[in-house]
Amino acid sequence: MRTVNVAIVGFGTVGSGVARILLESGDALAARAGVRLRLKYVCDTDLQRPRDIAVPQELLTDSLDRVLADGEVEIVCELIGGTTVAYDVVERALRAGKHVVTANKALLAERGMPLMKLAREQGVAISFEGAVAGGIPLILAVRDGLVANRITAIAGIVNGTCNYILTRMHEEGTPYAEALSAAQAIGYAEADPTLDVSGRDSAHKLVILGRLAFAVPIAFDEVYCEGIEGIDPRDVRFGDELGYIIKLLAIGQLDSSGGVNLRVHPAFVPKGNPLAYVADAYNAIMVHGDAAGDTLYYGRGAGQMPTASAVVADVVDTALGRATLTFAERDMFAEDAAHAVRPIDDVRTRSYLRFDVIDEPGVLAAIAGILGSHAISIASVLQHESTDAEHVPLIIMTHEALERDMQDALRQIEQLDAVRCRPVHIRVVDQEGGR
Amino acid sequence: MRTVNVAIVGFGTVGSGVARILLESGDALAARAGVRLRLKYVCDTDLQRPRDIAVPQELLTDSLDRVLADGEVEIVCELIGGTTVAYDVVERALRAGKHVVTANKALLAERGMPLMKLAREQGVAISFEGAVAGGIPLILAVRDGLVANRITAIAGIVNGTCNYILTRMHEEGTPYAEALSAAQAIGYAEADPTLDVSGRDSAHKLVILGRLAFAVPIAFDEVYCEGIEGIDPRDVRFGDELGYIIKLLAIGQLDSSGGVNLRVHPAFVPKGNPLAYVADAYNAIMVHGDAAGDTLYYGRGAGQMPTASAVVADVVDTALGRATLTFAERDMFAEDAAHAVRPIDDVRTRSYLRFDVIDEPGVLAAIAGILGSHAISIASVLQHESTDAEHVPLIIMTHEALERDMQDALRQIEQLDAVRCRPVHIRVVDQEGGR
Repeated sequence: MRTVNVAIVGFGTVGSGVARILLESGDALAARAGVRLRLKYVCDTDLQRPRDIAVPQELLTDSLDRVLADGEVEIVCELIGGTTVAYDVVERALRAGKHVVTANKALLAERGMPLMKLAREQGVAISFEGAVAGGIPLILAVRDGLVANRITAIAGIVNGTCNYILTRMHEEGTPYAEALSAAQAIGYAEADPTLDVSGRDSAHKLVILGRLAFAVPIAFDEVYCEGIEGIDPRDVRFGDELGYIIKLLAIGQLDSSGGVNLRVHPAFVPKGNPLAYVADAYNAIMVHGDAAGDTLYYGRGAGQMPTASAVVADVVDTALGRATLTFAERDMFAEDAAHAVRPIDDVRTRSYLRFDVIDEPGVLAAIAGILGSHAISIASVLQHESTDAEHVPLIIMTHEALERDMQDALRQIEQLDAVRCRPVHIRVVDQEGGR
Repeated sequence: MRTVNVAIVGFGTVGSGVARILLESGDALAARAGVRLRLKYVCDTDLQRPRDIAVPQELLTDSLDRVLADGEVEIVCELIGGTTVAYDVVERALRAGKHVVTANKALLAERGMPLMKLAREQGVAISFEGAVAGGIPLILAVRDGLVANRITAIAGIVNGTCNYILTRMHEEGTPYAEALSAAQAIGYAEADPTLDVSGRDSAHKLVILGRLAFAVPIAFDEVYCEGIEGIDPRDVRFGDELGYIIKLLAIGQLDSSGGVNLRVHPAFVPKGNPLAYVADAYNAIMVHGDAAGDTLYYGRGAGQMPTASAVVADVVDTALGRATLTFAERDMFAEDAAHAVRPIDDVRTRSYLRFDVIDEPGVLAAIAGILGSHAISIASVLQHESTDAEHVPLIIMTHEALERDMQDALRQIEQLDAVRCRPVHIRVVDQEGGR
């Protein structure tokens, strides 16, 4: 059996997990993989910080030069994170002729193109299963498992932190700030949770998935992105009454004219749709292919060992020589556009709307009139009594309408004297595959 | 871009689907795959029967000899089905140095070992994504995506026909025979549904999955197999009241002493477990790995285009040369046992029991006494009033107990004068990953 030497660069949480698998399941892993993986270096600028795994002293180094100069090292795992130092490390590793495995979604989403190009020039591969949906082999499914399909839609829960927060809000009626604190207390959310709760992390993953699924060169800022910070527990409850569960979804759709829309936003998913039942920190992604139909992939989207599982799968794929074949033959981050990226304005969705209105005659008529004049048709109306004597929440579910029309209508409705504050607008994603 | 010649042997439903993809999505498929697939032959003994796709006359042949003698053909897709003619076709194709792609679960489960061995000797690959769970890239996930993991459990719904029938029984209270007729009416069940409803088809798939997941040489008759024919709608309803949904599960588990148990049987899955929400003809499989944790794969487990999607994915994998690398390095159908297969008697599960008893004092005490003397502890009791004056259904949920003890106890309880007929015993599968 062949032995392949591997270096880990970035000895943090995921790096420690990868080291653990390589060091502790050596023989069993070799038997499963058909190749023996030898951890030759663990490289980090800080080797003093305590880790949860004991790595033999002779593997530790703070010199990337030493790692890259070692001709025996075939695979470098970039597990630093961020888009600056990590970029330099990957670039230098590629130039040194090493294959790269990375779990760095921000790097790939924001600066992936030139690195992919360089790897192709160098005849080596970049693999990134760990960058999207952690322990779920989703990249493998989209890239290889569904290769026979024209993929027309992806829709998924790709941020466990947000899903944990929304699950608490849905199941216990917890307000957002409290649910966020709970997520922080058990280590699901960072002290600064912005990257997660703003939807930006989901957008990073959507850029990567969208490029693979639709073969279109997506710039990060082409993804429409709305986070969960503004979610009011009342809307979570009203949605539940209407048969919907709130989720932060990352959605990519191919339209009939060959355009692609890409968006991250809170969405009401009807009970009955498999995505509605994905609770806590789990991730799940629905993919619609023209031959396979809807398939869904569910599991832990983050965390030390799930992400390490994905990284090691890529290392095996690379060590067996398969990654090189895949990477050489298939332009996964194509630079020439097969599809144009469409703005959110062009998207059609059903919507949940909540208006806090003064309880007086004619208000519903005024709102309905504005919606109607924007070609937005009402599916149902729910008016709850309020403890607030003056204002009542008026909930309107609409049929499918164009986002541009909806925004125009909402701006106009906001101007009505009887409407107290900014209307709440939550899109409904009501078919499998995000349609 | 390289062109690889492919032959389809068996021009039935799946064969037509594969032909459709290869003929109709040629350029787009080549762009995605990185290799051009050329359909060179479609071979069948009956070329007159009408098909739902028009294949150019010059591709059609009834001579397997001609296909195998053509040195340009690199890949043979065996889509005949069954274990006799198909065996000969695969054997001859391998001897002729062709790679084989098959969707034939019965063939692999019952006669797979010698074919795998022959393929290894010939230096070619056998791929079989389409044999398990149709359009879901499950083999890819278990074999490659989770390669870093020691897989400790798989539990899944792998027969869409049974799941459709059980969904009708659960959602509408339909009796078994009526639900089966409904499945036959829409083409989900065969005129002779035995292979599906007996659990045998699920067992075929479990043999294949179990071999991959646990690297153990499983003989088909080592899988415990119980079908859905005996399911009474009353039990479906009582289970629902207790918080469970009935599913036919295929389960493989590694125990702490290194043994594997493999079983197909109806099971009560608690609401809250993702498998409980898999409805209609969909399949879903939960896999537990020591690093990734629980992952689940959901989609269409059968049907023309989903299965064709899987077959074409294998053809691409083979055409790119990846299948050969995987097959050469990894003994996927290992002949030497890494684990012993344990009989069902050694399995521990929670159970749902229903006894139809004469409504008289002391009956519950007698039953509870027998259970207790077999170390079976009662979790809850549910007694419903009956319209039948003489008999009432007595439902007992037990804590985890050994199957052997349960069978002994049930035989003893059956002898009681107050117990009318054979007790109903449905195992509860209550944790993710089938534990």
